[in-house]
Amino acid sequence: MKIDLNADLGESFGRHIKGNDAEIIKYVTSASIACGYHGGDPLTIENTIKLALENNVAIGAHPSYDDLVGFGRRSMKISDDDLFSMILYQVGALKAMTEALGGNLKHVKPHGAMYNDLANSLPKAKVVAEAMYKIDPELIFVGLANSEIQHAAREIGLKSACEVFADRAYNDDGSLVSRHKYGAVFEDGEACMNQVKQILTEQSVTSINGNAVEMCIDTIGIHADNYEALDFVKSFHKYLKENNIEVKSLQP
Amino acid sequence: MKIDLNADLGESFGRHIKGNDAEIIKYVTSASIACGYHGGDPLTIENTIKLALENNVAIGAHPSYDDLVGFGRRSMKISDDDLFSMILYQVGALKAMTEALGGNLKHVKPHGAMYNDLANSLPKAKVVAEAMYKIDPELIFVGLANSEIQHAAREIGLKSACEVFADRAYNDDGSLVSRHKYGAVFEDGEACMNQVKQILTEQSVTSINGNAVEMCIDTIGIHADNYEALDFVKSFHKYLKENNIEVKSLQP
Amino acid sequence: MKIDLNADLGESFGRHIKGNDAEIIKYVTSASIACGYHGGDPLTIENTIKLALENNVAIGAHPSYDDLVGFGRRSMKISDDDLFSMILYQVGALKAMTEALGGNLKHVKPHGAMYNDLANSLPKAKVVAEAMYKIDPELIFVGLANSEIQHAAREIGLKSACEVFADRAYNDDGSLVSRHKYGAVFEDGEACMNQVKQILTEQSVTSINGNAVEMCIDTIGIHADNYEALDFVKSFHKYLKENNIEVKSLQP
Amino acid sequence: MKIDLNADLGESFGRHIKGNDAEIIKYVTSASIACGYHGGDPLTIENTIKLALENNVAIGAHPSYDDLVGFGRRSMKISDDDLFSMILYQVGALKAMTEALGGNLKHVKPHGAMYNDLANSLPKAKVVAEAMYKIDPELIFVGLANSEIQHAAREIGLKSACEVFADRAYNDDGSLVSRHKYGAVFEDGEACMNQVKQILTEQSVTSINGNAVEMCIDTIGIHADNYEALDFVKSFHKYLKENNIEVKSLQP
Repeated sequence: MKIDLNADLGESFGRHIKGNDAEIIKYVTSASIACGYHGGDPLTIENTIKLALENNVAIGAHPSYDDLVGFGRRSMKISDDDLFSMILYQVGALKAMTEALGGNLKHVKPHGAMYNDLANSLPKAKVVAEAMYKIDPELIFVGLANSEIQHAAREIGLKSACEVFADRAYNDDGSLVSRHKYGAVFEDGEACMNQVKQILTEQSVTSINGNAVEMCIDTIGIHADNYEALDFVKSFHKYLKENNIEVKSLQP
Repeated sequence: MKIDLNADLGESFGRHIKGNDAEIIKYVTSASIACGYHGGDPLTIENTIKLALENNVAIGAHPSYDDLVGFGRRSMKISDDDLFSMILYQVGALKAMTEALGGNLKHVKPHGAMYNDLANSLPKAKVVAEAMYKIDPELIFVGLANSEIQHAAREIGLKSACEVFADRAYNDDGSLVSRHKYGAVFEDGEACMNQVKQILTEQSVTSINGNAVEMCIDTIGIHADNYEALDFVKSFHKYLKENNIEVKSLQP
Repeated sequence: MKIDLNADLGESFGRHIKGNDAEIIKYVTSASIACGYHGGDPLTIENTIKLALENNVAIGAHPSYDDLVGFGRRSMKISDDDLFSMILYQVGALKAMTEALGGNLKHVKPHGAMYNDLANSLPKAKVVAEAMYKIDPELIFVGLANSEIQHAAREIGLKSACEVFADRAYNDDGSLVSRHKYGAVFEDGEACMNQVKQILTEQSVTSINGNAVEMCIDTIGIHADNYEALDFVKSFHKYLKENNIEVKSLQP
Repeated sequence: MKIDLNADLGESFGRHIKGNDAEIIKYVTSASIACGYHGGDPLTIENTIKLALENNVAIGAHPSYDDLVGFGRRSMKISDDDLFSMILYQVGALKAMTEALGGNLKHVKPHGAMYNDLANSLPKAKVVAEAMYKIDPELIFVGLANSEIQHAAREIGLKSACEVFADRAYNDDGSLVSRHKYGAVFEDGEACMNQVKQILTEQSVTSINGNAVEMCIDTIGIHADNYEALDFVKSFHKYLKENNIEVKSLQP
C-alpha cells in the first residue's frame, strides 16, 4: 500500500508571507505551487520550486481564477476560451520555470473555487484537461476523488489522481459533506487515519449515514497554512509508516 | 544582404484592444509578444501566438516590468532576484504556450523602460541573459544595437541581435538622439531607407553631427499601434525588396 | 416630457484608450465614470471628471467587480461584506475626486456583470444601496427599469432612476430579451425612438410578444465605445428635441 | 510635552494577513491606513477604519506607488500627473470611507519608496501636497523630519508633522544614517527614549558623529508587523508616561 501526500505551497504574495512551507515540505511527497493568480509571485514561485527540488518532492502547478484579493476562493463565470488560455499561461509558466531550475512538472491541481467548479462540471474540467494535454500529455490531473475531474482526465487521455481529505466526512453519493453540517470535519486524528486506511484496503468510505461508499485514493491533501497543519502531517506521516503504508509521490 | 523586421504584438489587454496586429504581421518576420506585465492577457497571448504561427513569423517574448497602468514605460528599481524570476516567469509562460500551440520560442526582447534600463546597465542585462539561458540557451537576446544588451548576451553565452530604429538619429557614441532634440526622428521615408542601407553595406550610420559611427544591425523595430505604422512597414518592405535586401527572421 | 441620456465614460486603462468620450459627452446629460475595477486608472478618472465638468454633465460612479481582464463582464460570487466595502471604496474615491475637482457626485450605476446580478437580486442590490447611503444619502441609484435595483433603493431610502435601453426588446415580465434571441436588438433607429416615446407617454413598452408591459423610464443608456454609438446618439438627440422631449440630467 | 505615536495599519491584502493591528492600535494615537496600492483591500480598509474609530485613534491615509508585489518599497519613475491623480484616488477613497463610517480623515503619510522619494524631492512632494490640498486643506502632511515633505507642505499651505524614528541614528545634516552602516539602528530601548527626550526638550539630536543637530518632532513612527514591535511600543508608551510626556494625536 502506498499514498501520496500533497500540500499547496508557494501561496505567499510578495512581502505577504503565508504558510510554513519549509517545515511542511519535509513531510509531503508532492507540492502544488501557486502560479500568481491567487498567491505566488515570480520570486516566491522560483524559491518554492527550489525548496521542492532540495526536498526531493514532486512538483505540480496550482492554477486559480484571477483573484488575488479573494485568494481564488470566489467562483467566476469565465468563458471556456479564457479558462483554456489561463491554464496554458499558469501551467506553462510553472513547467518552464521548473525545467529551468532543473526539475520536471508532474501534476496540476486546480485551486479553490476553480477546484470545486471543475469537480462539478465535466465540460469545464475537460477544457482544463485539454489545456494540460497541450502543455504536456504526461501531466497528472489531481482532483477530488470520484468527481468530474477524474472523468475529464480519462476522456482527454490524461492520467488522473484521486484526492481525498482525511478529515472530511462523505455523503452517500461520494461527495464531501458540507462544512456547515454537523460531523463534516473529523476533529479526531484516529478517525482520519481510519478513513484513509479503509479507502486503501477496501476502496470505500463509511458515509455520514453509515453506508459503505466506493472511493478511490491516490493522494491526501495537506493544509500548509497553520501550525495545527504541521502537527497533523507529522503525526499522520508517522502513523502511515507504522501501518506499513508507503508515502510516495504519484509518479514512479 | 538580409534583415529581420520585428513588431511588438499582443499588447491588447482583455477588452482593451491595441494595435493592428493582423495587418502588421503580414509584413514582419518576427513578433515580440507581450507577456501580461504591460499588456497581454492569456487569451490575447494565445491568439497572438496562433496569428504568428499562421503567418509563419518567428515568435519571441516581450517581457516588461510589472506595470499595466503605465504600459511598462515607467522605470522601477527592482532587485536582481526579482528581475531574474520575473524573466523566468514571463519568458517561461511564452515558451510553454508557444510549444503547446505547435511552435518554438526564438527570441526575447525586453519592453519599454526595461529595454532602456538594460541597454544602459551591463549587470542588469546579465541578470536577464542568465534567466534566458536557464529557460533555453538557444534564445536570441534582441536589444538596442551597440548596447549593454549585446555585451551581456556575449558574456553569458547567448546569441544576440542588434535592433536598429530606421527612423531615429544617432549620437557620435552610437546611442539614440533623445526624442526631445531637433532632428531626432526622421520624418522622411527615404532617410529611413538610406540609414538602414548604410548600416547594411558599411556597418555604420552618419551621426546627427555628420560623423560615421560604427553600427550593427540584425533587426528593425516596427511599431504596430497606429495606421501610419502600417503604411510605413508596407512601403519599407517594398523598398527592401527593390534593393535586394532579403526580409528574413533571425534564425536560419 | 424629459429624459436623461447617460453614457459610460472613462473606461480607458492607462495607455489602453477606449471609447470616444470627448465626442459622446456633448450629447449626454450624465456620465457614469469607471472607478478602476473594470477600466479607469486615477489619471483617466481625473481627466474624465474634468471633461464632465467642462461639458456641464452630471457625474456618477460606475463601480464594478474587480476584473480588469474581463472588463467587469464576468460574474463573481463575492460575499456581501466584500461587495459593501468594494462599493464604499470605488464610490468613495469617485466622490472625493469629483469634489476635489469642483463638482458633486450625483449617481451610481453598477457596471456589467454587477449590474445584471443586482438587477436580479434584492439582497445584493440592498447591500450596494446601503453602502451608497453611507457615502451620501442623496446619491441616485441608477439601474435596470423595473428591476430589484429600484426596489432596493426604495427599501434603503435612496432615490433611484429607471434605465431603459432604447434598442432592446422586452419580455412580458419587463426583463430584457436575451441578446441571443431573434429580435432582441432593434437595428432600426425609428423603432428605438418609438419605444422611448411609448414609455414616456404611456409608461409601457410593447413586449416581443406584442403585449403592453408597464415600464418606467428616467434615463437611457448610451454606448460610448464605437463610432456607430456616436451617430446614434447624435440622431437620437436631434429626434428628442424635435419631439419636444427635454434632455436633462436626473437631478434638478 | 506631548507626542503622537503613529503606526502603519491595514496592510493586510485579502487573505494575506499582515501585522498585529488589533494589539498595536491600543498604544498609538494615529493610524496610517494602507489604501490598496501596496497593501489593503476594500474590506481590510473598512475594518481598519472601524478598529481605529473603536480605539479613538486619529485616522490617516497611507498612499503608495502601485506595487502590490513589491509592497510599495520599489521606487518608480512616474509622471507628476500620475502622482497627483494617484494621491487624489487613494486619499479620496480613504477620506470618503472614513466619513461614511463616522470618522474624519486627519493626515496623509506616504508609504515606503514614495515616502523616501518625496523626502528628497521638493517638486514631487509639492505635487502630493497639492493633491492633498484639493482633497481637504486641513489634512496634515506627515513625513520625515527636516525633509522636503515639510517644505512642500509649507509652500502649498498645508499643516505638516515631523516624523522621527526613535531607534534610528541621524547624520550631521539631519538625514537618517543608512541601515547598512554600523550604529544606524539603536538596539537599546533606553537610547531610543533618550533620543526622543532630547528632541522634545532641546529640539536637537546628537548625530552619529557626536554633534548636536537641530531636529523637529511631532510624531514617532511605530512598526506594526512583528511581535518585537508590540513589546517596544508597550514599554515606550509606559516610559513616555513616566516622563510626563503626553501621548496625543496630532490634531487638537
